Amino acid sequence: MSEWIKVAVDAMGGDYAPQEPVKGAVDAVNDSPELFVWLVGKESLIRQELDKYTYPADRIQVVDAPEVIETGEPPVKAIQKKKESSLVKALKLVRQGEASAFVSCGSTGAVLVGGQVLVGKIRGVERAPLAPLIPTANGVALLIDCGANVDARASHLVQFARMGSIYMENVVGIKNPRVGLVNIGAEEEKGNALVKETFPLLKECEDINFIGNVEARDIPKGVCDVIVCEAFVGNVILKLYEGVGSTLISKVKSGMMSTLRSKIGALLVKPALKETLKSFDASQYGGAPLLGLKGLVVKSHGSSKAQEIHNSILQCITFTREDICGKIRDHITTEKKEEA
Amino acid sequence: MSEWIKVAVDAMGGDYAPQEPVKGAVDAVNDSPELFVWLVGKESLIRQELDKYTYPADRIQVVDAPEVIETGEPPVKAIQKKKESSLVKALKLVRQGEASAFVSCGSTGAVLVGGQVLVGKIRGVERAPLAPLIPTANGVALLIDCGANVDARASHLVQFARMGSIYMENVVGIKNPRVGLVNIGAEEEKGNALVKETFPLLKECEDINFIGNVEARDIPKGVCDVIVCEAFVGNVILKLYEGVGSTLISKVKSGMMSTLRSKIGALLVKPALKETLKSFDASQYGGAPLLGLKGLVVKSHGSSKAQEIHNSILQCITFTREDICGKIRDHITTEKKEEA
Repeated sequence: MSEWIKVAVDAMGGDYAPQEPVKGAVDAVNDSPELFVWLVGKESLIRQELDKYTYPADRIQVVDAPEVIETGEPPVKAIQKKKESSLVKALKLVRQGEASAFVSCGSTGAVLVGGQVLVGKIRGVERAPLAPLIPTANGVALLIDCGANVDARASHLVQFARMGSIYMENVVGIKNPRVGLVNIGAEEEKGNALVKETFPLLKECEDINFIGNVEARDIPKGVCDVIVCEAFVGNVILKLYEGVGSTLISKVKSGMMSTLRSKIGALLVKPALKETLKSFDASQYGGAPLLGLKGLVVKSHGSSKAQEIHNSILQCITFTREDICGKIRDHITTEKKEEA
Repeated sequence: MSEWIKVAVDAMGGDYAPQEPVKGAVDAVNDSPELFVWLVGKESLIRQELDKYTYPADRIQVVDAPEVIETGEPPVKAIQKKKESSLVKALKLVRQGEASAFVSCGSTGAVLVGGQVLVGKIRGVERAPLAPLIPTANGVALLIDCGANVDARASHLVQFARMGSIYMENVVGIKNPRVGLVNIGAEEEKGNALVKETFPLLKECEDINFIGNVEARDIPKGVCDVIVCEAFVGNVILKLYEGVGSTLISKVKSGMMSTLRSKIGALLVKPALKETLKSFDASQYGGAPLLGLKGLVVKSHGSSKAQEIHNSILQCITFTREDICGKIRDHITTEKKEEA
């Protein structure tokens, strides 16, 4: 039992709770013999869902949490007040070492605040970035940071580059991931004060594969694997990706419906196109890790279905097995020693 | 003759110079009886192009400029050294009042620096923003600022909101344009130091229609007409718009070619789809005005063809006729008086 990888799942977070989180957890447990899941939330509701499925009963345990943190509640207050919420109780399991990772589709703000306050940062990590995977022309890239802490310093961005590289190499499996710094031009001297200060620091890092500045235009082309930026810019990139994508797709759809000829064509094109567009939907990549904490905290989309939650849980298994927290700790410690 | 609207065109700027700038100028002059164009560049090359067309000879005049500023030259140095360049000579025509506006498809950096140094800012204007129109689901919106001057202050953003509103109302014809501040959340308290400081200042402005924060996700939906942000963020938005758009379109195309069935469908869909996608191509909207100067400076895409240059010149006519410079001067003066 001690070899099980234990993940705490917020059964009450997201638009389809508790149905989809419970189903995602059941699927993950049935899929991975090494997995144990704590399902945290209103016990009666969770049991009602669990009754629908067959699963190894020794590897799913329900933890009753009568309160729920709603999206839109001020995160800091909610974390402080709702000690009996699914989110707080699940995060405490990570802090106590009862789980190595946590997955939630609930309030982004509460997950970010809760992760930092209740799980805590690895010693030496200055800031814990939220780092979703975004689709590119030829795969995915890690956009780091998209979190809630804006006005970052250059030293934060350097740590983001290091943590992002470790994640992409060990969890996503990309050897020697290319790190790019988001800027408004390709030349070293371009940019605002923050990126001008960050560029030479990244150039000096021998443990990352820094390829220089990357312009926003080239991000979707897949020119790098780790996209480093401060959270305000990261948030704009993430949301504009979704926005341009969905507006363009609805334009394509209405364009296809504009003439009789095109309507017939649309019927023929539809199945092939659906697959293509799915591969470029940012929401398909599910869980965004909050890196640099003493355990893994994964924020899944509010609209996640069982499949995405299942994927997020699988991510936790790889993360734990590869000891990403340990690798980040070692890297940050080395870095701090070098500085001293 | 004194009633003609005079526009100086950089005949040597852009990927298709001098052919396309010359053709665009000829088309514009043939189209607008009130227009006079200075074609500035290598005289022999320009005359060679002009010989291909019929046009009222009294309304196009060639100004010889033997030098050319290339894309990639350091802008400040280029402006200082190449006094006989088409860009410098054309901008001087604006400074001297011989032209009310200037259009170039040349180096963005040189146009921005040249505009500020050679034409000069309107008294009271703190910073001259570059403000391209970007496509949205239901029309266009002005993205202000996308220029080269980063690390803006709150007072700059307030002036951008005012100048952008004047432009959208008088040049694009949108009554009471909705102004949004780019932020990472809709709530007033969200954001970095700059937007937190800017939000209450915009709320106080009685002369603009401030609708609050706008998230990047909603920009393509067309939720506002004037999108206010500092240049780093604006640049990321503009370039990501292009990047996501072009990657997605090439994905759609290859998706359509993936099966025999979809290939047949693609043939039927193509004509309708082409029109749709064109309407969402950021490069279609050609000229981006550099606002707040004593004359209008328009930067057209480097890849502009005659049609886009023609459109940029027409924009100059409206701009001059509506006396946008005068309106900006009046607004900024009022604002300064109110402050005193």
